[in-house]
Amino acid sequence: MRPIITLLTDFGTADGYVAELKGVLYAATPEVTVVDLSHDIPPQDVESARLAVARYWRRFPSGTVHIIVVDPGVGSNRAALAVSSDDRFLVGPDNGVLSPALLAGGSRAVALPVPTMASATFHGRDVFAPAASALATGTSIDTLGAACLDPVVRRTPEARRGPDGSVIGEVIAIDRFGNAISNLIAPRGGRIEIAGRAMPIVRTYADAVVGDVIAVVGSSGFVEIAQRDGNAARALDLARGSAVTLRPSSA
Amino acid sequence: MRPIITLLTDFGTADGYVAELKGVLYAATPEVTVVDLSHDIPPQDVESARLAVARYWRRFPSGTVHIIVVDPGVGSNRAALAVSSDDRFLVGPDNGVLSPALLAGGSRAVALPVPTMASATFHGRDVFAPAASALATGTSIDTLGAACLDPVVRRTPEARRGPDGSVIGEVIAIDRFGNAISNLIAPRGGRIEIAGRAMPIVRTYADAVVGDVIAVVGSSGFVEIAQRDGNAARALDLARGSAVTLRPSSA
Amino acid sequence: MRPIITLLTDFGTADGYVAELKGVLYAATPEVTVVDLSHDIPPQDVESARLAVARYWRRFPSGTVHIIVVDPGVGSNRAALAVSSDDRFLVGPDNGVLSPALLAGGSRAVALPVPTMASATFHGRDVFAPAASALATGTSIDTLGAACLDPVVRRTPEARRGPDGSVIGEVIAIDRFGNAISNLIAPRGGRIEIAGRAMPIVRTYADAVVGDVIAVVGSSGFVEIAQRDGNAARALDLARGSAVTLRPSSA
Repeated sequence: MRPIITLLTDFGTADGYVAELKGVLYAATPEVTVVDLSHDIPPQDVESARLAVARYWRRFPSGTVHIIVVDPGVGSNRAALAVSSDDRFLVGPDNGVLSPALLAGGSRAVALPVPTMASATFHGRDVFAPAASALATGTSIDTLGAACLDPVVRRTPEARRGPDGSVIGEVIAIDRFGNAISNLIAPRGGRIEIAGRAMPIVRTYADAVVGDVIAVVGSSGFVEIAQRDGNAARALDLARGSAVTLRPSSA
Repeated sequence: MRPIITLLTDFGTADGYVAELKGVLYAATPEVTVVDLSHDIPPQDVESARLAVARYWRRFPSGTVHIIVVDPGVGSNRAALAVSSDDRFLVGPDNGVLSPALLAGGSRAVALPVPTMASATFHGRDVFAPAASALATGTSIDTLGAACLDPVVRRTPEARRGPDGSVIGEVIAIDRFGNAISNLIAPRGGRIEIAGRAMPIVRTYADAVVGDVIAVVGSSGFVEIAQRDGNAARALDLARGSAVTLRPSSA
Repeated sequence: MRPIITLLTDFGTADGYVAELKGVLYAATPEVTVVDLSHDIPPQDVESARLAVARYWRRFPSGTVHIIVVDPGVGSNRAALAVSSDDRFLVGPDNGVLSPALLAGGSRAVALPVPTMASATFHGRDVFAPAASALATGTSIDTLGAACLDPVVRRTPEARRGPDGSVIGEVIAIDRFGNAISNLIAPRGGRIEIAGRAMPIVRTYADAVVGDVIAVVGSSGFVEIAQRDGNAARALDLARGSAVTLRPSSA
């Protein structure tokens, strides 16, 4: 089986940085399959990258190596990490972007040494790609660096219970379709209040007429606010951090 | 030979949905080659996706599986289809996006069952990807679902003959370069009238001086309106549906 | 080892042109690995493509075939080239985009014949892809066309020495992060003057406080102007061609 190395960056592709990184990977390990996940993370948006990583890191087969480079602190004294978790590997900066794998039971992290010749502005090419090639071809993570015992961890903000049985959450992401993804889970359904509107949780977008703003349980299990054939975030002027309230069905 | 699975979606890549879909494919069938065709179809623009599919579906080798997910009706009672046509396979929603393959002689379609556990908002991950993995590894399409005898079919609008021997067509797409692609074919050349301008059909962009608006026969065989080193759609305020007339050479 | 064919274009992906090109490659040579480098080069921006090619062409393994299609002159009498250089191959239009490989010692170029049936607007599909498939599977470049002895070559503009020991350069590119990449090299450090500001050359972005505009030696060896957690090009209104001066440390 060919080992898989995936790429998530905020580089875009037009400048040739991703091309350089791929060249380094294929030159070191021509037998790998390099898989683009995204190069369109908004520049330096660690939180967007963290949420994407949470979606995908464990869906790939055992042995997959995930490179994640959204790295505003490149060249500073932030550590460069390799992480082993649930039989997958992740490499990237120690800024919280690897949290979904670090928080899983049994994860281990090592701090990668930065070679003297490495560019201080492009660790993706000079630090993370070589580490990923090594891991993809069976090098033990323990030989790549010293254990890092307190990596930076970021978590999705938790919703809190309101005085009246409601649950008070917030928007954690706006996706390409303008859907506002919240941190609310609603196993028994209920009503959602956001931006001065109230709406029931329906099963899917199609359970609404065109233009209606609705709430659905999205594909990651969280309640999303969507507009049928429209853009809910624009319609309701929503952004990351916007308040959203769940009134559970039993309330 | 490694089986090929291609992807065309309107997901963008930044939110991690494409990453999840690829994870599901590689976990089920690590031996496949997954090929990105586009994730930049404008959100929910079934017509753009249909035109792209028409360009590529038959150019890939026999046995290729094309996943196409532009799916505003996800979760509704629209069928989820797998199609066999000219020794290729396509999976996607029953909204017309698969028409180019459905209209070819000998095509067959089956309706994929939607598992109870499938997300009502992400059939790409939970319905189409598993079906594609099955087809790529040799599962018979007949075992995937019951025959669908009347799938939704969309066609490129046909040009019509005018009273004076002209042919009256319309713009069916604007491409990234601002070229306006019409539904006109002009095997014997002629003159094009659009947006109050008239111009001969020339052989290629370079047969004009910079800034000139010209008509050429594009790479799919249709007449296109282009501006040398410019953007014809912006220059002439063209959009999908804009009227365009051909006066054939013999007229 | 599977041969590698890389793709750099200004096609975007939404229109299906890249999809057609990949279909042609996989149909001719199913055993290759096709690697996307970028399809987001600004339309017809030969200079951006040339700078990207300079970054990556030699980082890939021996035998790699690079397809580069940024081709405003498609269909004109500009030659279609295949280039052999340092054991890699490049195919693309003769407009300077292949210069980084042409300028390396020992390079050779041949002019590819354009088949009668080729679309005059899409040589990527009908000329460059077939040539790339041939090269990737071991066909000798000499059999693909007649030697081209004077291909178009473009060079990065050279900085010049000022009367007072300073070095006067210019911005050659703005990257996705808003970093302005100059044609200055500063092996011994110094100070940079640009847009009425002066700043020392620091080691990396993190050696500044948020909002500061700084100069660093970038990953390609050139001095770059950056803004910590910001966009230097926007902050200082910089563009390709903006003047920038280096006052070397010893001056």
